[in-house]
Amino acid sequence: MAGMLTIRVAEKTDVPTILRFVRELADYEREPDAVVATEAGLLRDGWGPEPKYRCLIAEWNGEPVGFALYFFNYSTWQGRPGLYAEDVYVRPEYRGRGIGKTLFVRLAQIALRENCGRFQWQVLDWNQPAIDFYNSLGAKFMKAWLTVRLEGEEIETLAAQTPGVSSDRR
Amino acid sequence: MAGMLTIRVAEKTDVPTILRFVRELADYEREPDAVVATEAGLLRDGWGPEPKYRCLIAEWNGEPVGFALYFFNYSTWQGRPGLYAEDVYVRPEYRGRGIGKTLFVRLAQIALRENCGRFQWQVLDWNQPAIDFYNSLGAKFMKAWLTVRLEGEEIETLAAQTPGVSSDRR
Repeated sequence: MAGMLTIRVAEKTDVPTILRFVRELADYEREPDAVVATEAGLLRDGWGPEPKYRCLIAEWNGEPVGFALYFFNYSTWQGRPGLYAEDVYVRPEYRGRGIGKTLFVRLAQIALRENCGRFQWQVLDWNQPAIDFYNSLGAKFMKAWLTVRLEGEEIETLAAQTPGVSSDRR
Repeated sequence: MAGMLTIRVAEKTDVPTILRFVRELADYEREPDAVVATEAGLLRDGWGPEPKYRCLIAEWNGEPVGFALYFFNYSTWQGRPGLYAEDVYVRPEYRGRGIGKTLFVRLAQIALRENCGRFQWQVLDWNQPAIDFYNSLGAKFMKAWLTVRLEGEEIETLAAQTPGVSSDRR
């Protein structure tokens, strides 16, 4: 398994690769039909005047084999930003070489540089290999916190409501 | 309970109020010692050249009685940004008047305006009144997803590691 690992910042020309990896990860997470992202959308949101996300590419002997896509969130308890990793992925045939670990180390370094008090991500509760790996990184699992979600038309339905409050203006 | 509800964008002069509400919410969430945020930090992060969060203030008859603090995250499955509400809070003596509902409606309207495909937040699994309220908004609970976290020195420890990969440069 000798080879050269390079971690670099993603460029616009990586967008097709990023979308391919997003789809491969969604397959692994048993949600292959959940990916409706397009190259145009990823390009608009990652390389506009206010990028909505940032991305690292892992290359093995010059070939892209994984990625880490992240953004910054905010903790009001800490009064500091945090780093949130939306996706960290290494293609199956390249696992066991420390590539995922190196992506997490690099993200931790970026978190420190950006004054982040937390570095967070999410994992599916049945993904035991990933859970074991995250335990090895010293991570804690916030089991008491449930994620709550509205999507698409559910947001539109809520946005159209007029709560019955005594109010002259809102 | 007649009165006038106003929802407005927070200003710099609201920071002491925001920090007070953050502390009241942490007390309710049984983590009173978790708040280390300062007014200086909230001011720096909310009103700098690249704001890390945005905030709405709810006023009842001109008095601040609640707030909603949010930022934008990103969904690679949707290829679109999302709105994430870090804190939504109404002081106990002002509950039952539709103020929290109005804050959620306003956040849903902002999500639509900003092309967000998702509107998300988190809730503690023992907070049944909040869970009932979120059900009434049509929200889904993503029970299979666990939040994973590194904080403070745990991030430093990971950042200092050099994974044992065959690599000339990373």
